[in-house]
Amino acid sequence: MKAKGTNSERELIHLLWKEGFASIRCAGSGSSRYPTPDILAGNGKTIVSIEAKSRAKLPVYLTKEEIDDLIKFSEQFGSIPLVAVRIKREQWKLFRIYMLNETDKGYSVTKENYGSGFSISELFRLKFK
Amino acid sequence: MKAKGTNSERELIHLLWKEGFASIRCAGSGSSRYPTPDILAGNGKTIVSIEAKSRAKLPVYLTKEEIDDLIKFSEQFGSIPLVAVRIKREQWKLFRIYMLNETDKGYSVTKENYGSGFSISELFRLKFK
Repeated sequence: MKAKGTNSERELIHLLWKEGFASIRCAGSGSSRYPTPDILAGNGKTIVSIEAKSRAKLPVYLTKEEIDDLIKFSEQFGSIPLVAVRIKREQWKLFRIYMLNETDKGYSVTKENYGSGFSISELFRLKFK
Repeated sequence: MKAKGTNSERELIHLLWKEGFASIRCAGSGSSRYPTPDILAGNGKTIVSIEAKSRAKLPVYLTKEEIDDLIKFSEQFGSIPLVAVRIKREQWKLFRIYMLNETDKGYSVTKENYGSGFSISELFRLKFK
């Protein structure tokens, strides 16, 4: 499960470099004592911190803690927090936090909001707020 | 050797958080197919990419490739490239690239330029160029 997550993160990093974003995987994401995203990427103008989820199918769930940590890190670092979702046989989709559904226990990407996600090739258009 | 490097990087990350910099260790530094620094840190204003060296004593050597990769990554990401040096029983010292000595095979921190390094608590003063 962990190796699978790592592999999908490596694929995402490769795609980000192809779009002009210098990108790294963060060590110890999910185990560090500090809030730590999965990926950081920047193109000299836009810097994004990404929580990545690769799943067989929708819906994709994110805990409140995952998103709170992502926001906390991003505010202090100076980056835009994003959730990246990859459903089997589809392309990566990117979501701003406000694009996620709020659930009782956290957040989700479902059939309802999946279509609002944007592609990696649109990432360079991103502006704060 | 690798675990020792990882531990000293964890210590540096802890010190950076204490100074208000959200910080992460980069996975796969030294093995990734892409240029990858050891550490990324940001405080909402200044973002730095760090190559970290923990050594028993001076001089500390850096290969041309290490520094070229650090500069390449930083220019694309949008961060300030720094070298962090920790000599046994001393505090971390930070160096801009131009503060390093150039050698035949790369760069070095020696008794001559070690004193020009600045401390982590001075990092927030950093401006580009």
